[in-house]
Amino acid sequence: MELLKEYILQKGRVLPGEIIQVDGFLNHCIDTKLVDAIGTEFFQEYREAKPTIILTIEASGIAVAYATAQQLEIPVLFAKKGEAKNIGANVYAADVYSYTRDKTYGVYVSKKFLSLNDRVLIVDDILANAQAAMGLLSICEQAGAEVVGIGIVIEKKWQRGSELLRKRGLPLKSLAVVEAIEDGEIRFEETIE
Amino acid sequence: MELLKEYILQKGRVLPGEIIQVDGFLNHCIDTKLVDAIGTEFFQEYREAKPTIILTIEASGIAVAYATAQQLEIPVLFAKKGEAKNIGANVYAADVYSYTRDKTYGVYVSKKFLSLNDRVLIVDDILANAQAAMGLLSICEQAGAEVVGIGIVIEKKWQRGSELLRKRGLPLKSLAVVEAIEDGEIRFEETIE
Repeated sequence: MELLKEYILQKGRVLPGEIIQVDGFLNHCIDTKLVDAIGTEFFQEYREAKPTIILTIEASGIAVAYATAQQLEIPVLFAKKGEAKNIGANVYAADVYSYTRDKTYGVYVSKKFLSLNDRVLIVDDILANAQAAMGLLSICEQAGAEVVGIGIVIEKKWQRGSELLRKRGLPLKSLAVVEAIEDGEIRFEETIE
Repeated sequence: MELLKEYILQKGRVLPGEIIQVDGFLNHCIDTKLVDAIGTEFFQEYREAKPTIILTIEASGIAVAYATAQQLEIPVLFAKKGEAKNIGANVYAADVYSYTRDKTYGVYVSKKFLSLNDRVLIVDDILANAQAAMGLLSICEQAGAEVVGIGIVIEKKWQRGSELLRKRGLPLKSLAVVEAIEDGEIRFEETIE
């Protein structure tokens, strides 16, 4: 997605630890025009798969999930972070390991909102090691729901999360694939559009 | 807003501790049709005030803020929860006391995204004691930004947050004002539309 790549190059920053900072338009301050266009991309990619619900994770996945869900005319369910045990037994829960923070955190959703009749489109802002995505997949598995797609805004390819997801046969679409960071510069995967 | 009140009565639940549970359409599973309509209400209420940015708080404020920002064609900035001290000095930060959890948590936004040139519309899902809103107001004050409005989806009037905000002369609009919970039933404030 060319518009997104322009945003990343113009407004993104590379921080130590191979972090791509996109807080100026994606995950702190949100550019509605860009995120609407991202929603349109996911809509076009996944409408044929007929998802019934979008599953994302708080907080930075919500805007992108919402912009997509508007166009698909389906609800958004966002997984909450934290200890599920205080919430009662009526949740599907999973542990997510964060490499960046070297910490495991819990994610959960209420059982009321996900069932085996659901066709789930998972949407998130960044894909690195796919630990968050694996947590969401586990939640779908617990619910018996089918995952019909995974839409990612920015993929950090060298961290190999996409490999992990594609091995499981999941239809993954990343709108911007960063192949590597070289001398502090972002290099996108070359694509033939 | 009649549609919202219908949702609250039909899909909301009253839990012990005077909690109004609206996780089926507002703050866990999000009904995009309803939230779009909420965005339209806030757009109509505040477009004359010419806000330049919407400020909300993660996670449950984001969808409502986004739906409003789309129509106003301005960005959303969501305050993050957590300890700002790990984030560096380039943040505006405030403490928020949660009565429900009897706990104080920090909220912060990056200084990059809020300045004295901004006209801020604060948007949030629930107004109770206005502790979260006061935190966001403090952040705006630190930035020197003007707050031109506060848009709330559901106000729990008896918890008196609205009184606190109106005393400060802030233009507050709550789309559904719950006056009281009586015998587990929600009673809305009577309004002449």
